[in-house]
Amino acid sequence: MKTGLLALTIVIAFGTIACSTTRDISSMQSPDRPNATSISPIVILIHGGAGSARPSGLPEEEEAAYRAALSNALSLGYEVLQDGGNALDAVESALVLLEDNNLFNAARGAVLTAEGKVALDALIMDGSDKNAGAVAGVQTVKNPIKAARAVMQQSPHVMLAGKGADQFAKQQGLETAGPDWFITEKRRKQLQRVQEAARSKTTSALPASSHFGTVGAVALDRDGHLAAGTSTGGMTNKKWGRIGDSPIVGAGTYADDNSCAVSATGWGEFFIRATVARDICARIQWTGADVQTAADQEIYEVSEMGGSGGVLVLAPNGSYAFSFSTDVMFRGVKTEMSEEVAIFADHGTKDIDH
Amino acid sequence: MKTGLLALTIVIAFGTIACSTTRDISSMQSPDRPNATSISPIVILIHGGAGSARPSGLPEEEEAAYRAALSNALSLGYEVLQDGGNALDAVESALVLLEDNNLFNAARGAVLTAEGKVALDALIMDGSDKNAGAVAGVQTVKNPIKAARAVMQQSPHVMLAGKGADQFAKQQGLETAGPDWFITEKRRKQLQRVQEAARSKTTSALPASSHFGTVGAVALDRDGHLAAGTSTGGMTNKKWGRIGDSPIVGAGTYADDNSCAVSATGWGEFFIRATVARDICARIQWTGADVQTAADQEIYEVSEMGGSGGVLVLAPNGSYAFSFSTDVMFRGVKTEMSEEVAIFADHGTKDIDH
Repeated sequence: MKTGLLALTIVIAFGTIACSTTRDISSMQSPDRPNATSISPIVILIHGGAGSARPSGLPEEEEAAYRAALSNALSLGYEVLQDGGNALDAVESALVLLEDNNLFNAARGAVLTAEGKVALDALIMDGSDKNAGAVAGVQTVKNPIKAARAVMQQSPHVMLAGKGADQFAKQQGLETAGPDWFITEKRRKQLQRVQEAARSKTTSALPASSHFGTVGAVALDRDGHLAAGTSTGGMTNKKWGRIGDSPIVGAGTYADDNSCAVSATGWGEFFIRATVARDICARIQWTGADVQTAADQEIYEVSEMGGSGGVLVLAPNGSYAFSFSTDVMFRGVKTEMSEEVAIFADHGTKDIDH
Repeated sequence: MKTGLLALTIVIAFGTIACSTTRDISSMQSPDRPNATSISPIVILIHGGAGSARPSGLPEEEEAAYRAALSNALSLGYEVLQDGGNALDAVESALVLLEDNNLFNAARGAVLTAEGKVALDALIMDGSDKNAGAVAGVQTVKNPIKAARAVMQQSPHVMLAGKGADQFAKQQGLETAGPDWFITEKRRKQLQRVQEAARSKTTSALPASSHFGTVGAVALDRDGHLAAGTSTGGMTNKKWGRIGDSPIVGAGTYADDNSCAVSATGWGEFFIRATVARDICARIQWTGADVQTAADQEIYEVSEMGGSGGVLVLAPNGSYAFSFSTDVMFRGVKTEMSEEVAIFADHGTKDIDH
């Protein structure tokens, strides 16, 4: 696993992370920032999946690696926003870093299908015009989130799947990669365990007790535009060309400047059925709910249906929320006032821990 | 095309079709129906696509064939409901009949991909528990709507794509079919025309001026449960494994007993981006809009984005609406009080014509 951390050797100083308990940072603009009244606050939120914790918790070294990876992705995305880049660029930059890191279940380090291959899903959505691009089941494009953006900007389509999507990405000149890049020993062993368990029927083949590992990001840029993106390898041992919630507009990913931006991670089937990402934004848009209430209500409904997982939510005014029904959610947020990275639930609130 | 009409030789007596102008039939229950106060009204709506009309309109014989096909599907689905069958069964029965009819762009008679093959998408959704099943890009299953139902009921997944979805359907014992069944001479010629036009760049390769031809149904059963289903061949000359709105929960299809059931037909990319089906039901659920207002608002928003198409909407109280921004929408509704089949827009209202 250490090979995946080559790009992450800059360890951030955790002691300097500010602790903010408010979810509305629109009133927290730096006083010396020029034109503070006419431009939007900039914010980025990311996640690296959610799931159940081992009773022993995470080994210290592993936890540090996750925190460093999340912090680096936050910093990179935030820099894009700070340099005047748009929300789409910030989301894409942060996700490329997480896709290239084999800690997460996206691109490099993705979980394996029943045939022992990767089949990668990704979606990016632009809140300014609700344009979107998605790929499902790609096997050769190095960064599925870049392929999703190419679908959005260079094709007349929103969603491409399978070999056709790989062909499109290649025609667009996007970098390809093979099994040596994508597949890790950890995932090979994980597939073996799941397949053995499935054969002996000692456990469900479903992902109720695993880490989901999907990566996602939402961002708000200086022009007040939102974007959202999600990238995943889906479920270990998946078959029959299964597509999860990540590449589906309104399920795992959604962005609209009129309501909010969402990236989800969790048990995809439930997130599709509950149209989680769109529902959270629709609650904000049509019931007047704040971001935290809308997110909590939706995650509660998914739990009632039998599913679990978590979401990032970001509104055009800069208010944001995390909500999850799992033990852990790898997550972070960076604003003009603070940077926070967290993994475990803060008992009681399920908000970010400080 | 006449071979596709073998099953449709029973010409219905159009003169006997009742004309209802109200959209709320919950107060129109037959007085002699037993237990009328304790059981739900039964309703089924279907569509066979939408698009632009040729200046000359439809040839008389062709129009009669479409009307007969729609009426037969309505009658079959309605009989299921009348016999105490559930909404899912009614939707599936009606759609199988339309899939098997080569007039429509679904299963037999579907449009062809750039490679000259069919690639079929379908989704069915149960409003009682928001369970759903979908297939995308299947090429060998005779009735994709049956495969979608098998995904819902016989797999732990919601959405399967490509060869994997075909394999799953075959393992489920569903009937398969080859190019001889699916591909019609009309579609071969249509593909040639579109590809020639694309080469000479005289017209857009996009479907703005064509018939979409997708088939869909929504139903309400005696127990008050809703269901929705949609089946399509997608866009002529599609490539790169393009997936449209039909097999996506909340885009082209949605059902929830707490709000409504929707099946859409139109320019899929816009319907995905606008999460049309979920948005209509969310407007009903959270803004208190009636079915017609919710549908009209959503179709207007899609038009503002640059897209076109139409929807069927059915609420748990039996109220229903059609709304479309195209010249024609092949559509029908059958209730305890009336049966209506229509093609062209009623100028001014865009409601069903009588």
